Amino acid sequence: MNRTPSGVTVRQDCTSSLENKKSVMLLNKRIPLSYLIINIKFALVYVLIVSFSAHFFSKEHQESLPDMPLAIPAFIGTAISVLLSFKISQSYERWWEARKIWGSIVNDSRSLIIQLQSFVSSGNEEQIKKIAFRQIAWCYSLGRSLRGLGPLDNIDAFISADELNELKQHTNKPLAMLNVHGNDIKNLKERNQLDVFAQVQLDSTIVRLCEAQGKAERIKNTVFPATYRSFLHAIIYLFVITLSLSFKDIAWYFEVPLLIFISVPFFLLESSAKDMQDPFENRPTDTPVTAIARNIEINIKQMLKETAIPQPMQPETFHLS
Amino acid sequence: MNRTPSGVTVRQDCTSSLENKKSVMLLNKRIPLSYLIINIKFALVYVLIVSFSAHFFSKEHQESLPDMPLAIPAFIGTAISVLLSFKISQSYERWWEARKIWGSIVNDSRSLIIQLQSFVSSGNEEQIKKIAFRQIAWCYSLGRSLRGLGPLDNIDAFISADELNELKQHTNKPLAMLNVHGNDIKNLKERNQLDVFAQVQLDSTIVRLCEAQGKAERIKNTVFPATYRSFLHAIIYLFVITLSLSFKDIAWYFEVPLLIFISVPFFLLESSAKDMQDPFENRPTDTPVTAIARNIEINIKQMLKETAIPQPMQPETFHLS
Amino acid sequence: MNRTPSGVTVRQDCTSSLENKKSVMLLNKRIPLSYLIINIKFALVYVLIVSFSAHFFSKEHQESLPDMPLAIPAFIGTAISVLLSFKISQSYERWWEARKIWGSIVNDSRSLIIQLQSFVSSGNEEQIKKIAFRQIAWCYSLGRSLRGLGPLDNIDAFISADELNELKQHTNKPLAMLNVHGNDIKNLKERNQLDVFAQVQLDSTIVRLCEAQGKAERIKNTVFPATYRSFLHAIIYLFVITLSLSFKDIAWYFEVPLLIFISVPFFLLESSAKDMQDPFENRPTDTPVTAIARNIEINIKQMLKETAIPQPMQPETFHLS
Amino acid sequence: MNRTPSGVTVRQDCTSSLENKKSVMLLNKRIPLSYLIINIKFALVYVLIVSFSAHFFSKEHQESLPDMPLAIPAFIGTAISVLLSFKISQSYERWWEARKIWGSIVNDSRSLIIQLQSFVSSGNEEQIKKIAFRQIAWCYSLGRSLRGLGPLDNIDAFISADELNELKQHTNKPLAMLNVHGNDIKNLKERNQLDVFAQVQLDSTIVRLCEAQGKAERIKNTVFPATYRSFLHAIIYLFVITLSLSFKDIAWYFEVPLLIFISVPFFLLESSAKDMQDPFENRPTDTPVTAIARNIEINIKQMLKETAIPQPMQPETFHLS
Amino acid sequence: MNRTPSGVTVRQDCTSSLENKKSVMLLNKRIPLSYLIINIKFALVYVLIVSFSAHFFSKEHQESLPDMPLAIPAFIGTAISVLLSFKISQSYERWWEARKIWGSIVNDSRSLIIQLQSFVSSGNEEQIKKIAFRQIAWCYSLGRSLRGLGPLDNIDAFISADELNELKQHTNKPLAMLNVHGNDIKNLKERNQLDVFAQVQLDSTIVRLCEAQGKAERIKNTVFPATYRSFLHAIIYLFVITLSLSFKDIAWYFEVPLLIFISVPFFLLESSAKDMQDPFENRPTDTPVTAIARNIEINIKQMLKETAIPQPMQPETFHLS
Repeated sequence: MNRTPSGVTVRQDCTSSLENKKSVMLLNKRIPLSYLIINIKFALVYVLIVSFSAHFFSKEHQESLPDMPLAIPAFIGTAISVLLSFKISQSYERWWEARKIWGSIVNDSRSLIIQLQSFVSSGNEEQIKKIAFRQIAWCYSLGRSLRGLGPLDNIDAFISADELNELKQHTNKPLAMLNVHGNDIKNLKERNQLDVFAQVQLDSTIVRLCEAQGKAERIKNTVFPATYRSFLHAIIYLFVITLSLSFKDIAWYFEVPLLIFISVPFFLLESSAKDMQDPFENRPTDTPVTAIARNIEINIKQMLKETAIPQPMQPETFHLS
Repeated sequence: MNRTPSGVTVRQDCTSSLENKKSVMLLNKRIPLSYLIINIKFALVYVLIVSFSAHFFSKEHQESLPDMPLAIPAFIGTAISVLLSFKISQSYERWWEARKIWGSIVNDSRSLIIQLQSFVSSGNEEQIKKIAFRQIAWCYSLGRSLRGLGPLDNIDAFISADELNELKQHTNKPLAMLNVHGNDIKNLKERNQLDVFAQVQLDSTIVRLCEAQGKAERIKNTVFPATYRSFLHAIIYLFVITLSLSFKDIAWYFEVPLLIFISVPFFLLESSAKDMQDPFENRPTDTPVTAIARNIEINIKQMLKETAIPQPMQPETFHLS
Repeated sequence: MNRTPSGVTVRQDCTSSLENKKSVMLLNKRIPLSYLIINIKFALVYVLIVSFSAHFFSKEHQESLPDMPLAIPAFIGTAISVLLSFKISQSYERWWEARKIWGSIVNDSRSLIIQLQSFVSSGNEEQIKKIAFRQIAWCYSLGRSLRGLGPLDNIDAFISADELNELKQHTNKPLAMLNVHGNDIKNLKERNQLDVFAQVQLDSTIVRLCEAQGKAERIKNTVFPATYRSFLHAIIYLFVITLSLSFKDIAWYFEVPLLIFISVPFFLLESSAKDMQDPFENRPTDTPVTAIARNIEINIKQMLKETAIPQPMQPETFHLS
Repeated sequence: MNRTPSGVTVRQDCTSSLENKKSVMLLNKRIPLSYLIINIKFALVYVLIVSFSAHFFSKEHQESLPDMPLAIPAFIGTAISVLLSFKISQSYERWWEARKIWGSIVNDSRSLIIQLQSFVSSGNEEQIKKIAFRQIAWCYSLGRSLRGLGPLDNIDAFISADELNELKQHTNKPLAMLNVHGNDIKNLKERNQLDVFAQVQLDSTIVRLCEAQGKAERIKNTVFPATYRSFLHAIIYLFVITLSLSFKDIAWYFEVPLLIFISVPFFLLESSAKDMQDPFENRPTDTPVTAIARNIEINIKQMLKETAIPQPMQPETFHLS
Repeated sequence: MNRTPSGVTVRQDCTSSLENKKSVMLLNKRIPLSYLIINIKFALVYVLIVSFSAHFFSKEHQESLPDMPLAIPAFIGTAISVLLSFKISQSYERWWEARKIWGSIVNDSRSLIIQLQSFVSSGNEEQIKKIAFRQIAWCYSLGRSLRGLGPLDNIDAFISADELNELKQHTNKPLAMLNVHGNDIKNLKERNQLDVFAQVQLDSTIVRLCEAQGKAERIKNTVFPATYRSFLHAIIYLFVITLSLSFKDIAWYFEVPLLIFISVPFFLLESSAKDMQDPFENRPTDTPVTAIARNIEINIKQMLKETAIPQPMQPETFHLS
């Protein structure tokens, strides 16, 4: 799939116009089994305990245990599949919204540079470069900030030491950067290097970047309704119990694997819904904010006709950061 | 989870660029059992009465009671799970829309300050501060107003006493504040401190704030279709009756807990749908309007280079206001 | 719930900043039983006829009637619940869209006044008031027009007799009012009381009002696909027949109520979907256009510092117009 | 339902402000049975053949035919109802999107006239009329073009013979008209009858009309994914076979009607989904583009204070073109 | 269906105003059986192996194999149909979003030309043509780039050799073209051939094109959540096993075809969901980017009054590229 061997940039040309190659989230296949098992290890232990205890308890207290007609777990299983589908659908939409927000960051970062080069009078290349590099820094910084990492790490290549020091005074670093954008553009206009209409148009782009930041922060900060999530979780556990009671007459070496095979997909789907609903947690299922920021860096530097262009992020074993 | 100990603002820096930490609604786990039981206490009592009466009635009138084939409650249960899923989905969308609206209030409040600082000629810092502080007041006031609390309480730190007095004449306080915003901006323009194009751009931001207010009021004021909601409720009660009739031959000490375990998730899901559909009711499941307004206050004050920055709201036991 | 006793406007202050109190559609609870029965009286009669005839016919022709396994109506019932859920979901979205459109009318009406006061040079208060009052008239007129009532009734307090006469020439009254808005704004600009940029911004607001009108008319005029709706209706009737055949061996005094209890929720849900899909029919389930227009009147008059402010609409027995 | 008798325009006044009366698609009720049967005649024949052959084949080869437990067709039927619901939902959204696009054409056509009258200096009424009449022609032409009819038929009342001749050179007639709009507006601006800002605002309206055209063409030209559609169709046929095998022991005079009654709703729903997904095919289920264009003509002519106003389209037997 | 015989452009006139005739994706019917079988050949082999081994294994170990009640596979099948429906729905939305993005590219490409012709002073036809031809090149180039083909192939008819050489320096070719658009427009403005307001309006169109590119790249680069997809796949395989165990008592010549007929639709639907979710892979189910770009070329050339207009793309056997 065109894994670009570092250094061989020329052959890569034809497809590399794309943002980043098949990078978001877990890569296309090859999810290590260990990764799956870690995700549902508690659920597995629970299923084992329930199935064995149901089996052996039923052996000894044959009479006192009620007959659980299969229709009960069957209807509960159907109910779970419906509820779970909606849950996955909502988690998927959160995850997809997060991806869309970072897509819009790509678009507006590029648009900002096109606009600066088109609106600002010739001879201000240095000033444009300063804003463009701060825009690159903003992308990296927002990504780290969303993941709870130091938002000012590794951006000293893009921002002067003085500005960096001033940013440290602010709680919300990326927001402060957008504020400095606004000041720089104000200076350009006051020095008559920029028309007031063009300033307003640039401001619209900054407003959109400000919106994208706020939207990403909203997804990061809004816990998926806890009651809804935990009730759904509880029903799956209930389902295992009723199913194991229905199976009590089957030999244990059939019952246990059957119970596991039937219940594990539900637990896995529920766990993958949980992963998708929080896409900025520094996990393999995250929106690949670092890789996207790197691509923005590449795009912007080429638009500025810079020469030192970095390589796109290479995928790790089975995912991309 | 980075609970910021008050006073230790420096270490908090790296992650605190986020709006507010995991704050919306019930916090991540630890929902007290008492909270759940309070939510469905009527449903629980109902289930107990139905199951016991079905059981003992069937004991005595064995002959006259019809056999309720399990297929009946099973299909009703499936129907409920489908209808309930759609209902939860619609409630979730209302709740998520409410959260989005407050997210857009965050974005537009920040944008308003960036725009004022970028568009208004230098030397009008006092005037900008006045508008910015009124914007903070607007956020607090709208939040309280949506929850049915006094919309002018606790905002005297942001608005002059004279202005506060004038606001008291208005039925819709937040709207009146936006109106004053418009006047202040008109004055700036008439004193030639603001270009007419920039005035129009600022007006667009005020229009968006006005829209956000109207949207939040719409959600507050629009009752979820009552017939739809109550018919769904009725079907769940019907389901309990048919299910208890199907179980009439099972020993009561199995029947009652089984009935409770199967029906309680439906009642809990229905109750959590009801909570989500009205997100401005001063309940733990609310959109955390006060915490969001506090974060806007922090952001705006830092953009104004104010020194007295308040702390973010600390979560209460298991939720955040 | 803060039912404002007329005359006691002061105490009402704290919550009355909201558009209108819990007013849309059927109020929160207390739907009279008579209202429900009227809605499904044909369905009830049908169920009674089918169940009795199935019962007594099966008594006499025991042999010739086939055994209807319960799985048939059970699966049909599940199918209905799925189809019905989608149908309700689409009707709900229509209803919610109608409410959103009227919400945007609230927002843009308010924005129009803020903009006029902010853009038009001082000394044109009379002209602003004229446009603002026409905007109030437009809201009432659009509401009545959507419901098929006389669009020019009861608006002579807001529009001069001359203008009213001219409006009578037009087929689409609200559209003609927006046209006059455009002319008034053109006059202001030609008299140099309004900048051309501000004129363009005001025009954008009028375009949005024109869009809101068109969207509401679209919902009013577009019949929900008739085939889709009637096929769904037919399946519910079929379900009753198959279910009654399955129950033919149960005593009639159990069968009839059982059949009614199981089928009535479907009919009620279908009927409440039908109500939601057409929200401008002068029914209790309508979007409360009159109450919303009244609130716009209150908001606008207070922004103009008028003194004669009307009361918000009071809810009728169980709904609000 | 206020069917306007032609000639009696005055009484019609009060409700006729609406775009067009209950006109889209099949009118409210009264779908002729013949229309339904034509839609599913192949399906009906298929069901008859399958049910009879299953019945008589099973009579003779009683032993060799397997017992088809009812659970198989029941679960397939449930699966179909789920898949079909999603399919209908997607078709409905296409149909509703088509209606929304034509709704936005109504809005932007009206807005264009309001803007022209508000922005262009007095004394250019002839020029405004020329553009307005071309806008009417554009609506008719786009509608015919979408339905695969001659896009330049019947529009000579709105466009000069010269212009019509030039349009004939173009493949995409409606697009060429928008292009001429742009030129006319350019002329107005070059003759200083129009401010450059107003020109830009008018251009935004033309961009929106261009978008509406492109969106309608997208729906017309994009075939609903063929594999998805045909697999769903195949499952319904499979369902009939398994159901008829399950019923093989029932007397044929019960089996055949039962099979028809159960399967026909699925075929009808699938057929009505197919109708909705392609709304520009000159069928009764189309978006009523001609009626909408006629209403735009009425609105625009009244805004121009023309005297010869046509009547709205009258519904045909059970639908409106 | 109006297949335009090449050369007979005149008769084609009446319907050819449409973007392209029924071209997206697999054409309306006639999907070759071979195409279907290739898609699910692994699934077919798997079903055959499972069904035969279940059958013959059960023959020999009659006693030790458990009885699999049909309710188990039935409920799993229902669960699959629900999960699969959501999956198809999400894939369909991705596919439809991709089509919408290319629809907006059509609209904005046309709008760009209308705007250039309307805003740029007369006498710059050469310059407009240069930008317009680069816009055609951009469409072809973006399409090839999304499919992983050489983005600069076959566009030398639209772009000068010098410019082509410079583009080769850039990783993201289409983005670089938009950048050159911006420069050309800047030049027009600096030579006073274009008003600054019109420049801002043109910039908005370029921002929208930049957004469309970014959105298409987002869909191309974002892998559908792998865990979600593979768990769903696994459940279908599990379903086949449980179903074959349920059928173990049926004669093998009934069991195998039955198993195939019931499971194949699921595999086919899953496979068609997989196709739809990645619409830029150079497959028959792709968004027909080349055909759309060709239509844009035809539209733009006719708006420029060019004479050498190419033919629309002709559909291949059963699809269109």
